[in-house]
Amino acid sequence: MSSPADPATLADLTTPALVVESSVFEANCAAIDAVLPGPRLRPHVKAFKSTALARRLARSGHNAFCAATAREIEGMAAAGLGDDLLLANESLDVRRLGAIADTAAITVAVDSEETIAAAAAGGVRAVLIDVDIGLPRCGCDPADAGRLADRARAAGLDVRGVMGYEGHLMMVADRAERIERVAAATTVLLDAAADVGGGIVSGGGTGTFDTNTWCTEIQAGSYCLMDTQYLQLDLPFDLALNVLATVISVSRKGWIVVDAGLKALGMDHGEPSWEHGRIFFCSDEHTTLQPDVAADWRVGDLVRLQPAHVDPTVAKHEQLWVVDGDDIVDRWPVDLRGW
Amino acid sequence: MSSPADPATLADLTTPALVVESSVFEANCAAIDAVLPGPRLRPHVKAFKSTALARRLARSGHNAFCAATAREIEGMAAAGLGDDLLLANESLDVRRLGAIADTAAITVAVDSEETIAAAAAGGVRAVLIDVDIGLPRCGCDPADAGRLADRARAAGLDVRGVMGYEGHLMMVADRAERIERVAAATTVLLDAAADVGGGIVSGGGTGTFDTNTWCTEIQAGSYCLMDTQYLQLDLPFDLALNVLATVISVSRKGWIVVDAGLKALGMDHGEPSWEHGRIFFCSDEHTTLQPDVAADWRVGDLVRLQPAHVDPTVAKHEQLWVVDGDDIVDRWPVDLRGW
Repeated sequence: MSSPADPATLADLTTPALVVESSVFEANCAAIDAVLPGPRLRPHVKAFKSTALARRLARSGHNAFCAATAREIEGMAAAGLGDDLLLANESLDVRRLGAIADTAAITVAVDSEETIAAAAAGGVRAVLIDVDIGLPRCGCDPADAGRLADRARAAGLDVRGVMGYEGHLMMVADRAERIERVAAATTVLLDAAADVGGGIVSGGGTGTFDTNTWCTEIQAGSYCLMDTQYLQLDLPFDLALNVLATVISVSRKGWIVVDAGLKALGMDHGEPSWEHGRIFFCSDEHTTLQPDVAADWRVGDLVRLQPAHVDPTVAKHEQLWVVDGDDIVDRWPVDLRGW
Repeated sequence: MSSPADPATLADLTTPALVVESSVFEANCAAIDAVLPGPRLRPHVKAFKSTALARRLARSGHNAFCAATAREIEGMAAAGLGDDLLLANESLDVRRLGAIADTAAITVAVDSEETIAAAAAGGVRAVLIDVDIGLPRCGCDPADAGRLADRARAAGLDVRGVMGYEGHLMMVADRAERIERVAAATTVLLDAAADVGGGIVSGGGTGTFDTNTWCTEIQAGSYCLMDTQYLQLDLPFDLALNVLATVISVSRKGWIVVDAGLKALGMDHGEPSWEHGRIFFCSDEHTTLQPDVAADWRVGDLVRLQPAHVDPTVAKHEQLWVVDGDDIVDRWPVDLRGW
């Protein structure tokens, strides 16, 4: 067995474990709510993959969500959070979403004739035209947006508007430069929106949540748990997520080893951080740490690592443990993993 | 729903999906069996986290396994593969293994008085003394091995021998240098073994499977699925594992986008490889590819990406699909994930 069903404190948890500091999480939510109340924020469930966490956001008035996978949409619908679900991604595997179109309001991003045909054939009822606004990923040529909207309407689909993701601008360090470049990217999106119609202009993310003032709704998710990469920016969000680990070995040579490694940490944005020393290296199920004060550490001690990238970190775990200091106050299953 | 329960071909799979080329997998197994028959190989289940795959290896005479987590040990025991299970890792969370000591033969690595005390208190019956042979991770000072063995025996534990992992030597490119450095590391281990007694000298890995000729058993796992990192060495193993993805967007600017990203790929050893072009970048649920011949690719096409590091890649998926060309011949659940 892993962690007991009803652990009371951090010491009861099987490590590695994801720990959410409740007060920081709530402060992050309050900070974004002050700028993006209600439908101005469309929380992106890919960041946390948990219907329990999504339900907490819905209680603050965010009832429209977006997602990156069909399974996330299915899970949100099954959890009764299907007021307005956007698959903010292209997919040909949409028949499974058409199959639940009577139980949830589902909109799918499309950027080609193939994805429009798949949506129509699969029983999807509503789409956004996804527009390339500078990130080399999905999205149609802006000049094609109007034509694709016509094509979608001809196929019987409700075209609700456009989306575009300025992902390449999330980490622009200088705020004034970020505003200027987001404005330029969003101008492209607004021009496409004029060709498409439908009212929704969806885009943005945690890095541009308050500098993208042109979209009708912002697709942010990482803000609530946060990671060390976004911490480099001038954002009003703090680290709410840690990976809790246990010291399993102490070397006389000055390093210690904890039981959280590559399989518990999103590594694509670099190594985790640790407030009491430096990261030596990560292995599959270990991280070797070089403490500032080696004598402080004993086998059995708990440490908290800060992951560099929250989204892939959460996807490696089965649950988020919500804590107030050392006390566990809630458990949020990570129930939207997989595809 | 995701993939149908009984998919017949690659086109039936929900992507991203892990695909194992059966003929390559079998050739990898045959290559290691020729060098390390029966108990000379103790396959490391951390590499594949699947009892179904482990059962296939057991059919070739490898009935002793090692693992990196308590959950892997529990799962192997529950699957009836508990003839000789080694938790090749330090843990204080061993009471759960003591609880199943009547159903499987479980040995645990220890490297400190604390881990010995935890093993004894937790009902574990057998241990190996884990020795630091040069990788800055777990393992006691070699000079302490004999003393720890005495301490373990005094606590009522069966001390079966030693283990040591020359992980820092896995990627030494030159074979002669690799042999020389593995010999030096193993000399330390053999000296400790003389102090400890017990007969087992466990170590090694895929990178040193045939150059470590001193250990009584080799702890290799990655060899059977393989990844692009180990492919750089002179090993007789080939890539059996691919991440299957679907092209969801094609840009006129020359790139294509597939639906496998950071959450489907182990990224710690770098980006995946693709035989038909280069990797542009990976996002959470996308990879943007720059094909050698852009005109060859259409929305809906399937591509196969080769992950840089197999172990964390497998841990992100729910199953391995075993294929013969385009035909699916078996499904191996990845049932040993988590902690």
